Amino acid sequence: MNIHVLVTNDDGVFAPGLLALAQEMRHIGQVTVLAPDHNWSASGHVKTMHRPLRVKDIRLEDGTPALATDGAPSDCVALAMLGLLSERVHLVVSGINPNSNFGHDVTYSGTVTAAMEAAIWGLPGIAISLDSPENHLGLLDYGPAARIARKVVATVLDHGMPEGVLLNVNVPYLSDDQIKGIKITRQGLRVYRDSLVRREDPRGRPYYWIGGEAPTGVPEEGTDFGALAASYVSVTPLHLDLTAYNALEDLGSWQWE
Amino acid sequence: MNIHVLVTNDDGVFAPGLLALAQEMRHIGQVTVLAPDHNWSASGHVKTMHRPLRVKDIRLEDGTPALATDGAPSDCVALAMLGLLSERVHLVVSGINPNSNFGHDVTYSGTVTAAMEAAIWGLPGIAISLDSPENHLGLLDYGPAARIARKVVATVLDHGMPEGVLLNVNVPYLSDDQIKGIKITRQGLRVYRDSLVRREDPRGRPYYWIGGEAPTGVPEEGTDFGALAASYVSVTPLHLDLTAYNALEDLGSWQWE
Repeated sequence: MNIHVLVTNDDGVFAPGLLALAQEMRHIGQVTVLAPDHNWSASGHVKTMHRPLRVKDIRLEDGTPALATDGAPSDCVALAMLGLLSERVHLVVSGINPNSNFGHDVTYSGTVTAAMEAAIWGLPGIAISLDSPENHLGLLDYGPAARIARKVVATVLDHGMPEGVLLNVNVPYLSDDQIKGIKITRQGLRVYRDSLVRREDPRGRPYYWIGGEAPTGVPEEGTDFGALAASYVSVTPLHLDLTAYNALEDLGSWQWE
Repeated sequence: MNIHVLVTNDDGVFAPGLLALAQEMRHIGQVTVLAPDHNWSASGHVKTMHRPLRVKDIRLEDGTPALATDGAPSDCVALAMLGLLSERVHLVVSGINPNSNFGHDVTYSGTVTAAMEAAIWGLPGIAISLDSPENHLGLLDYGPAARIARKVVATVLDHGMPEGVLLNVNVPYLSDDQIKGIKITRQGLRVYRDSLVRREDPRGRPYYWIGGEAPTGVPEEGTDFGALAASYVSVTPLHLDLTAYNALEDLGSWQWE
């Protein structure tokens, strides 16, 4: 079967991480790039229904034809599945995000929500993020992460994605031979270090930045963050059933009225 | 202890569902309203870091002082917790959304993501949605749902919210005495019926609407949708660990390279 891979991201269609991913996905099968025309980082899971979406034919830096939309990453997946693309998509790959997406990041992350949207449509969805160092200067090397993405996609196609599951893949910022391997992990804990910066505009009216230091995490054994800290690729299977099953009994025993 | 309740929503600070909720929350304790200045439906879990946020003092229809921001529902919670409010918040209540939020809606829903943000900050977060009939004409009666919200909040304060849990509450559109009671449920399955509408602008360029019929659901016993279909309030405990634990073993047995 000729596999048709939809490549999207949340950094915008001209991001170098997307180009590296699209190039590597050509070894898997036919590739369609449909991605936002601007950055949607930390944008969450969006379904744009209050305004129409535009779609434009463009070309990536290497000449690859691509589609750019003013919708969100999850809208890209919905557009493809709702019939914008004439050929059936078999798999959605999103990224490569220049920063890791761990723990609580997953519901904010545009990269991950594109894979969530794929899961809602019954497709394998794989989000790829690179754990690049804070304050990295210059161009990032997406090569190792793109090659990992290809391995992960090939493995998923071999085995079949479990129903309702998407994969959140984080790759350490290391060379191919420094990466120790792939670990299947659970979602760990993010530690946010946000702070609020209050400023005044030239007319004396306040405005507020959500700022602060980059988030860190708890490097527990078995978690996404733990795997990266030990130089492994982290592959976390996620699903969209957010029920806190272990709270059901407790809440069921409460007197509600 | 004097309880301080933060009331927010995703429909905008002047939505009638927010007013009904804020009025009822005054029976619980001190109320601060901090909500978006415009509609953020299906906007997902947002953290606005690429632009500053404005916050404006306004008054609700009944004269209640409130704060309106150009940020998302989840930003409202973050702003409050990062120090915009001088007094400590004990609980976040989000709503009342005029439509139900079931199944896969939870990661899209601005109403629910405000409660998610509360959970990330270690606060009880409760999202309230009204399962109003499709094509309802005229003003909705938020009274019964607001009174249910008060009961739910009082019960949570009595027992203490389990760690990391938020509640997704859906109320049937019925009078107080028609509502049969409260059921603790798991997240059910949404059935989306979206379709893509292609139009051309006056210059002959295409644009696309994500349209279609309102989503429906699978009314399975024990689920959110099932409870509502049987005239019960649905209270679903959610958490933010999206790990598909039952897929860990399977994926761990695969040959990854």
